[in-house]
Amino acid sequence: MSQVLLERARATELDAADPLGGYRGRFLLEDPALIYLNGNSLGALPLATLHRMDAMLRQEWGTALARSWDHWVDLPAQAGDLVGELIGAAPGQVLVTDNTTVNLYKLACAALDARPGRHAIVTDADNFPSDRYVVEGIAAQRDAELRMLPTDINEGLDPDLVRAAVDEDTALVSLSHVAYRSGALADMAAITGIVHQAGALMLWDLCHSVGAVPVDLDGCDVDLAVGCTYKYLNAGPGSPAFLYVSARLREVLRQPIWGWFSQADQFAMGPRYHPAAGMTKFMTGTPPILGTAAVQEGARLLLEAGIGPIRAKSVQLTCYLIELADALLVPLGCAIATPREASRRGGHVSFRHPQAERIVGQLAADGVITDYRTPERFRFGLSPLTTRFTDVWDAVDAARDLIKCEG
Amino acid sequence: MSQVLLERARATELDAADPLGGYRGRFLLEDPALIYLNGNSLGALPLATLHRMDAMLRQEWGTALARSWDHWVDLPAQAGDLVGELIGAAPGQVLVTDNTTVNLYKLACAALDARPGRHAIVTDADNFPSDRYVVEGIAAQRDAELRMLPTDINEGLDPDLVRAAVDEDTALVSLSHVAYRSGALADMAAITGIVHQAGALMLWDLCHSVGAVPVDLDGCDVDLAVGCTYKYLNAGPGSPAFLYVSARLREVLRQPIWGWFSQADQFAMGPRYHPAAGMTKFMTGTPPILGTAAVQEGARLLLEAGIGPIRAKSVQLTCYLIELADALLVPLGCAIATPREASRRGGHVSFRHPQAERIVGQLAADGVITDYRTPERFRFGLSPLTTRFTDVWDAVDAARDLIKCEG
Repeated sequence: MSQVLLERARATELDAADPLGGYRGRFLLEDPALIYLNGNSLGALPLATLHRMDAMLRQEWGTALARSWDHWVDLPAQAGDLVGELIGAAPGQVLVTDNTTVNLYKLACAALDARPGRHAIVTDADNFPSDRYVVEGIAAQRDAELRMLPTDINEGLDPDLVRAAVDEDTALVSLSHVAYRSGALADMAAITGIVHQAGALMLWDLCHSVGAVPVDLDGCDVDLAVGCTYKYLNAGPGSPAFLYVSARLREVLRQPIWGWFSQADQFAMGPRYHPAAGMTKFMTGTPPILGTAAVQEGARLLLEAGIGPIRAKSVQLTCYLIELADALLVPLGCAIATPREASRRGGHVSFRHPQAERIVGQLAADGVITDYRTPERFRFGLSPLTTRFTDVWDAVDAARDLIKCEG
Repeated sequence: MSQVLLERARATELDAADPLGGYRGRFLLEDPALIYLNGNSLGALPLATLHRMDAMLRQEWGTALARSWDHWVDLPAQAGDLVGELIGAAPGQVLVTDNTTVNLYKLACAALDARPGRHAIVTDADNFPSDRYVVEGIAAQRDAELRMLPTDINEGLDPDLVRAAVDEDTALVSLSHVAYRSGALADMAAITGIVHQAGALMLWDLCHSVGAVPVDLDGCDVDLAVGCTYKYLNAGPGSPAFLYVSARLREVLRQPIWGWFSQADQFAMGPRYHPAAGMTKFMTGTPPILGTAAVQEGARLLLEAGIGPIRAKSVQLTCYLIELADALLVPLGCAIATPREASRRGGHVSFRHPQAERIVGQLAADGVITDYRTPERFRFGLSPLTTRFTDVWDAVDAARDLIKCEG
């Protein structure tokens, strides 16, 4: 690569030409010295959310008090429909409620109940811990078989591995669309098709996809999906997660945690549980109202920017990062631990280095926030609405200086 | 009763003499015309919470970003220990996480697993819907027997009914400490003792107790408890719930929803689930951080006021309300649907009237917020930190005018 392409001036040019450049000003990012490449862990605070929270606190809670439940009760479905727009789900199939783990549990139990006589659950040895542990727990409780795909931790899911693992005994396949460690992007359409050929149900975890990568759940004929909202969706620490149930299955499935918010005719307080119609049945108890409002704000901002332009910038950011890293970090012993083909990765890039954990700590001390993942990885998360090309340049420059000094 | 005791001047005197009178100023209650007797549904907004949320949003999320997880990770246990002080639980037994329904589910499953060979779950036909539905769902999944106590819906739990329902096949008894409809207060010590004599585990729902009624979980040798935090604890709409597991059982029990926040050595991302030691095992996924901080603020305010003075004022408020109602509402066809003995009720009083639902609607139109519960009940919730004696007088006066006009 020519020296010119490696200079910071090139990053400044890219920022100047960035059609989404103005969105950074829509967030509270007050520390000008901070390089934040961890939006794939916790997204930044949108100013709209700050204003919405003030109104939620002072007006809706503090002043209107319990009377606000008249409209709060609709928030989980309203926020769900907004999230649905980001993931290719027509209205009435997404709900914002509980956390990802609880939603995984509800949907995985529902899937197993919907496939009586089938005893196997397939997941991925490289899947995110909660995804694996939830089905491990369900398999233990129900004496089901757990099949772990031996996925390559750098290159991601191979559809042929899925094909080899599913059969007439498979009830459910639960996988992540974008791998939390490598950032590898799975072929949702192909894998869902393979799973359906075996007569099993497909559950996708969209935690690292939603708000960064185009998703077409309805178009891919997906059965079930879950995802968190505190990463690219920018809804705050521990904001409620979402769940998707295809309209094909909505009235058929039942989930195991029966609470008053999932009951038909909730305020009749009737003697027996009768699941509500539609998505409401997938609720549990009282939903987190403030967090759900934050999901609405986060989703609206992404929809305003458009998932197309977001993905375009995301690809440009990760390509730029990999170019710089190839020139400046790979010679120092860092390996790219993310697929090199842009169409096969999501919004973050993972690097392997024996001192990865120390590098993350030292970068943080220099005001460059990234994160560490076993084994020997550091991740640069590039959140298209807030990450600048100069952030990428500055972070690579800081990492290079740091690793050089170590050498 | 003498006419003098019925005059508003008496309420004004009681307010002037109220040692907790100053606490109302610690809440954002900006509408001077509003009479809010629904704090047993959604408590008011503490000013400290407003300030804390601003700091959580701007500093901890917006500025420090993911670095805040270094201390956020301790919040569920820290908030839990504060709640523990309100309910007689020594540190290390309470966690703030998920909602009440999910916590009921986790603990009820854990209890059944801890009593293999026993097949019956006992609850109360008058228990809150979520409490009944959760065990109904678990009983259906596990082919367990569900035994419903035929509790009097005005007078509450009779320990003899519990004694008659438990036997060597009973795994779990799940009951509410204060009944949501009648406000009847159960004898926790006696009932827990009866349940233990049968070798079963006891789970108490403290939703209508915490922050209003003294609770002594450790002293009563309780096994398990849950509760919400948006009523007398004033932590906001859908704020996270708590769960209590006695130190006796903490290392023995296992809950069914296995997520990364309940895993030993969380960031090792290990191949298999190993439950964390202590209470952490009872977590699921990423906890709602802002809501958990609101629980801390709500709990601190109650601890500052002291549960003794809170209960004293609560008893004084409900006695005053019943006195006024006996004189002014009972003659108009309202029946007291709450135990008359102060030691046998919690913080709200329930009235029966054939037009209860309409009365609640018309009171709301007059700026008096109460709530309706089937069958034919309206509840006046008296939250000791925010409810004035004049609020009680004004509400009874409004109800009297309204019912008289109907007649």
